Amino acid sequence: MSQKLSIAIAGLGTVGVGLIELLHQERDLIRARAGVDITVTAVSARDKTRDRGIDVSGYQWFDDAATMAAAPGIDVVVELIGGHEGIAKDVVETAIKAGRHVVTANKALLAHHGTALAKLAEEHKANLAYEAAVAGGIPAIKGLREGLAANEVTEVFGILNGTCNYMLTEMAATGAPFDEILADAQALGYAEAEPSTDVDGYDAAHKLALLAAIAFARPVDFDAVHVDGIRHISPLDIHYADELGYKIKLLGQAKRHAGGVSQTVRPQLIPKSLPVANIDGVLNAVVMRGSFVDEVLLVGRGAGGGPTASAVAADLIDIARGIAPPIFGITTGHMQAESPANDTVPESKQAYYLRVSVKDEPGVFADIAATLRDHAISLETVVQRGHEPGQNVPVILTTHPSSETAMRSALATIDAMDTVLAPTQLLPIMPA
Amino acid sequence: MSQKLSIAIAGLGTVGVGLIELLHQERDLIRARAGVDITVTAVSARDKTRDRGIDVSGYQWFDDAATMAAAPGIDVVVELIGGHEGIAKDVVETAIKAGRHVVTANKALLAHHGTALAKLAEEHKANLAYEAAVAGGIPAIKGLREGLAANEVTEVFGILNGTCNYMLTEMAATGAPFDEILADAQALGYAEAEPSTDVDGYDAAHKLALLAAIAFARPVDFDAVHVDGIRHISPLDIHYADELGYKIKLLGQAKRHAGGVSQTVRPQLIPKSLPVANIDGVLNAVVMRGSFVDEVLLVGRGAGGGPTASAVAADLIDIARGIAPPIFGITTGHMQAESPANDTVPESKQAYYLRVSVKDEPGVFADIAATLRDHAISLETVVQRGHEPGQNVPVILTTHPSSETAMRSALATIDAMDTVLAPTQLLPIMPA
Repeated sequence: MSQKLSIAIAGLGTVGVGLIELLHQERDLIRARAGVDITVTAVSARDKTRDRGIDVSGYQWFDDAATMAAAPGIDVVVELIGGHEGIAKDVVETAIKAGRHVVTANKALLAHHGTALAKLAEEHKANLAYEAAVAGGIPAIKGLREGLAANEVTEVFGILNGTCNYMLTEMAATGAPFDEILADAQALGYAEAEPSTDVDGYDAAHKLALLAAIAFARPVDFDAVHVDGIRHISPLDIHYADELGYKIKLLGQAKRHAGGVSQTVRPQLIPKSLPVANIDGVLNAVVMRGSFVDEVLLVGRGAGGGPTASAVAADLIDIARGIAPPIFGITTGHMQAESPANDTVPESKQAYYLRVSVKDEPGVFADIAATLRDHAISLETVVQRGHEPGQNVPVILTTHPSSETAMRSALATIDAMDTVLAPTQLLPIMPA
Repeated sequence: MSQKLSIAIAGLGTVGVGLIELLHQERDLIRARAGVDITVTAVSARDKTRDRGIDVSGYQWFDDAATMAAAPGIDVVVELIGGHEGIAKDVVETAIKAGRHVVTANKALLAHHGTALAKLAEEHKANLAYEAAVAGGIPAIKGLREGLAANEVTEVFGILNGTCNYMLTEMAATGAPFDEILADAQALGYAEAEPSTDVDGYDAAHKLALLAAIAFARPVDFDAVHVDGIRHISPLDIHYADELGYKIKLLGQAKRHAGGVSQTVRPQLIPKSLPVANIDGVLNAVVMRGSFVDEVLLVGRGAGGGPTASAVAADLIDIARGIAPPIFGITTGHMQAESPANDTVPESKQAYYLRVSVKDEPGVFADIAATLRDHAISLETVVQRGHEPGQNVPVILTTHPSSETAMRSALATIDAMDTVLAPTQLLPIMPA
């Protein structure tokens, strides 16, 4: 490697601009730490004339990012366009085939095409680095892929979407419903105008699929992630969870079971005694459990120009330092898809929280309790408040660890009862 | 590198035995991830005949670890002897000079000789890896040195000693005094028979000196660490801190100030709202603050055979993968000792907790308050409980951010008062 690492940046949004600012501000430090100058040579974005608050006139400008990806004089292409098809994929493939290293923050692209791109990069002896794709500034990829490399990982889970964590935190603080908090979050810039990627769990699922691939030495399998979001969480759920000693967090969770690996993104009740329960606001958190290390928790900012640029620049420094572990912690040829990842693992029992909306009539609770008993589901707590006879009321139940199959079967019966007025809210409870 | 990484282990205590177990149990996984077999070839310990629960007869035995360090056929020497002089230092130096890579868990050795050993390793193109030396299984060195490499670090702090964290947690839970909790911890194996290294803060100081060197690109400077331990913490302090919304933790903290870098190990009051306040029991935690990443928190087990072996093995896998960043994140030739690190930075103001033991006589509190006022120290809260006249009572004060110089000067006056019955307890309060 020469005394200069020449980079081209595709995409000049918040992260691209943040990266340029970082490389400028920390130039001396990075030169000392990386052993070379990391220099922006070329940039590409949709609109050359847009005011980004930084001067890009000193860089070679490309209207077409894919052309830039193969242009001469570039060591590393930084892909910050986003999206799992189209131009982003084209840029990454072109760059790798042209012998460039690639750094990307694009979780969607890697969730859909990670294994194929890693294979392509192996063939071309290129780095494909993506620390910024998962949990922003937190060194989660490095921590798992390198720090826990000697462990058989049993589980990795975390708060992988800052927008959802912010919204759940605000719902807890204010008691306001989802729609109202979403509007606030959009006004503050914490949520997109089209919020589905965040609030319906897809963004977290993209990240989870990458963590799961590393953790379990398997191909990236986004399609196997069971995805649920936070739209159906009511302030009532947050209120009762709090009363019972829990917080509700949207968790991405990948676990090894006897039957394979499960990958889920869904809201869960977490005991307040666990450190991860107290990671609030826009923060992200990743918990890794391994055969020898026990448990490691990493916390930090999962988004934003500064933290994401920090992760991109760390990847660039890794490349400058010649650090190139296998892209998913193992070469693609060694990946093992032991069994199809699946989201329902009947053997694995867990405790559940249920909020049943019932008409307050004599015998209603007895019917529900009998149904659960008939499915071998035993109750841990029951909360039913005093109220006017005849009103609609929530009955809050928590169960001992139960099979998901039995639970879903019981709920089908319960939700078909005349006295049950709305689909029952069902959320898993994480063990303390 | 051949298809085998041949290692020699010096020291077969808990960590050495844990490492052998790990390399055996995770052999297939490590081969797949590292690309080579990591094989124990030779071992050395004081007593060949001791029953360690594992069979070491298959390894070449050396009575003298330094001889082993230069023996043929070894790629990496793992130093798990401990201590900052004598045999451990000899083993590491001999191994490096013989062209071996070194992995060590020895924080004391590196705290005292880290820069010199890093220089020696640079000269001999050897790795000197020490993830296990700081915070056990937590990838703290990797997180800081690589994950935050693009950041100007402003501060690194953490709970770096599990024994002290366990003891403070137990003191809080039981209200029992230090001596009693120490005896319990010793009985449980959480504290050594000779506990000074832990409870007087030296172990945390060793680790802090390593983190500070990486964070601030400076030579390791253990002698500049201001070290205070937890012997003087009373259950009263924990009780009143709790009442005021704080937990008491022994924190190692290195900060960049206008005048240089400060390194301190001392008990501090931490607002319960900060995640690090809720890291209890034997857990360790490291917080890193950087110019772009904002803040990252890492939590996990800081000691024990499994977690420490996990970190040692991660270093071995790094070596197998050819991962060799500068030992302290920067080559020794680029390290800058801008100014002597110092523990008192008068410009830096902070809030304080004071517990003053006074004879309950009229005017006593007025005298104390006047003294603080005369030193431009303003009070945030005062807690003084009702009691029988004439009894000795604690007066608990917290201050607004104040200069340490002014505070120490005020305390000299206060502690010289006839009505003040014992040296005042003074603890810094971390900002929320």
